[in-house]
Amino acid sequence: MPFQAHLKVCFSDIDNAGIVYYPRFVHYFHVALEDFFSMELGVNYSMLLQKHRIGFPTVHLETDFRRKLRYGDHLIVEVRVLKLGNTSITWGYKVYRAQEPGLVVTEGQNTTVCMNIDTYEKQGLPSWLRILLENYQEKCDLLEKAAEDPYAKV
Amino acid sequence: MPFQAHLKVCFSDIDNAGIVYYPRFVHYFHVALEDFFSMELGVNYSMLLQKHRIGFPTVHLETDFRRKLRYGDHLIVEVRVLKLGNTSITWGYKVYRAQEPGLVVTEGQNTTVCMNIDTYEKQGLPSWLRILLENYQEKCDLLEKAAEDPYAKV
Amino acid sequence: MPFQAHLKVCFSDIDNAGIVYYPRFVHYFHVALEDFFSMELGVNYSMLLQKHRIGFPTVHLETDFRRKLRYGDHLIVEVRVLKLGNTSITWGYKVYRAQEPGLVVTEGQNTTVCMNIDTYEKQGLPSWLRILLENYQEKCDLLEKAAEDPYAKV
Amino acid sequence: MPFQAHLKVCFSDIDNAGIVYYPRFVHYFHVALEDFFSMELGVNYSMLLQKHRIGFPTVHLETDFRRKLRYGDHLIVEVRVLKLGNTSITWGYKVYRAQEPGLVVTEGQNTTVCMNIDTYEKQGLPSWLRILLENYQEKCDLLEKAAEDPYAKV
Repeated sequence: MPFQAHLKVCFSDIDNAGIVYYPRFVHYFHVALEDFFSMELGVNYSMLLQKHRIGFPTVHLETDFRRKLRYGDHLIVEVRVLKLGNTSITWGYKVYRAQEPGLVVTEGQNTTVCMNIDTYEKQGLPSWLRILLENYQEKCDLLEKAAEDPYAKV
Repeated sequence: MPFQAHLKVCFSDIDNAGIVYYPRFVHYFHVALEDFFSMELGVNYSMLLQKHRIGFPTVHLETDFRRKLRYGDHLIVEVRVLKLGNTSITWGYKVYRAQEPGLVVTEGQNTTVCMNIDTYEKQGLPSWLRILLENYQEKCDLLEKAAEDPYAKV
Repeated sequence: MPFQAHLKVCFSDIDNAGIVYYPRFVHYFHVALEDFFSMELGVNYSMLLQKHRIGFPTVHLETDFRRKLRYGDHLIVEVRVLKLGNTSITWGYKVYRAQEPGLVVTEGQNTTVCMNIDTYEKQGLPSWLRILLENYQEKCDLLEKAAEDPYAKV
Repeated sequence: MPFQAHLKVCFSDIDNAGIVYYPRFVHYFHVALEDFFSMELGVNYSMLLQKHRIGFPTVHLETDFRRKLRYGDHLIVEVRVLKLGNTSITWGYKVYRAQEPGLVVTEGQNTTVCMNIDTYEKQGLPSWLRILLENYQEKCDLLEKAAEDPYAKV
């Protein structure tokens, strides 16, 4: 299974129509990505800025909203690495309600570029981070194959 | 010229990397759309909910981020109606910095469906609102043609 | 021990000075109060609005900020009922970092009034809710006495 | 008249009870303070951080909420300098609705300390900034006296 972040819909996420204000979903993606860095990779997202002097501005975002969320809903946000370029990473997100784990609420992806935060120029992904992300991709691939073929070894 | 909303990048929009937290751009789109309703159409966005019992949840969002924004930047957000369906509207947004009006900072579009907020079912766009939006589309088309052909009358 | 909510400082809570944007603390108070309702009282905060037609607007807020928070800090927010009036409740909050449980980071209190959300008039606290909150106050008092006198029975 | 910032209640400021989520008022105070720096003092708030390496964390906040706000309300936020210490400044805020300029909606004050953002130690207020703030205080005092005595010269 890919990494899953656990979030909760709070009062201030709800708009006057009684549903989640849609820009909040993009915030959920970001919080899930932060959790992915700290809990899956063991990397403090903020240290990337402060120590490694790199940031990950988003250059493209696409999202499909399929179901509504309500106050108090517990969310599962799956994070995937869809594509690793020289300087760019494309991340995939699927949001589920915890009580309906099979139904995708929202699905999205964003492409980030690796940027030197002192010069604001893009730069190659550091090799240590590339390796961590490649390992994660492989793990997700293996798990997906295993899910398809229950006799395969993981 | 299409409708232009005027916003400002405030301190809390800036993240630890010194640039705008990218989910805030989607919030800028929403604020610009609210201003479009009140200032271009003369319609209070909240009254659509409270009196007309309709809301406009987003079902799809796409955004390209091309330039970074900094604290204090004055923004111009152009709002266009890209497509009018039976129940759906596709809105287009272009964000510029006021001091560089020719350079698109961020460009996006979202598709909303017209929803009855009591039943949470989708419904046809009210005819009065359709007419307002068609008129706005026509106006934008005429202005664009006029901009291409300086001898045309508007 | 009083009820403790568990929160985390996320990237968008951090401002350009590298510390938590101070209005976010008030948001932390609110999220902790929502958790108090659902996890301590078993009451869905949103149902108070939708089913019981009451809301709890704040009429007064006071907060002391003593220590700074950083990205990724795990927070404990203690929630107390300081005072129960006919229509008002005064809530107390103490925020700690999980790794320094003895040091108060921020301490605050707010007074809310019970409001009928259809008429926007204040009204007496419903008796069922008053009983729940009195029971919670008693429990906190007993626990505090027990903490002072290790021979007392709780 | 003291400096007045102009804000607008947007859709995402409104909570499920149809009124402004109360932590947003503290955000309004901050936005008004940013406008005060740029428009009254001619100082870019962010440059204080980046060039002068000082920040203004809040150590105390008090707020009274007297009237509710609704979607679309235009706000006037008056900013005053209540007290200038060696390292601290106490700011006062009064929020009005533009259509009811005599009725205070929310009134608050916060005390900030001048902090070196590299060492996170407090430091004396820079003299150039102290002079700007003293001048502003004097101007406000004169205007208030003039308002009381219509024959006085300003």
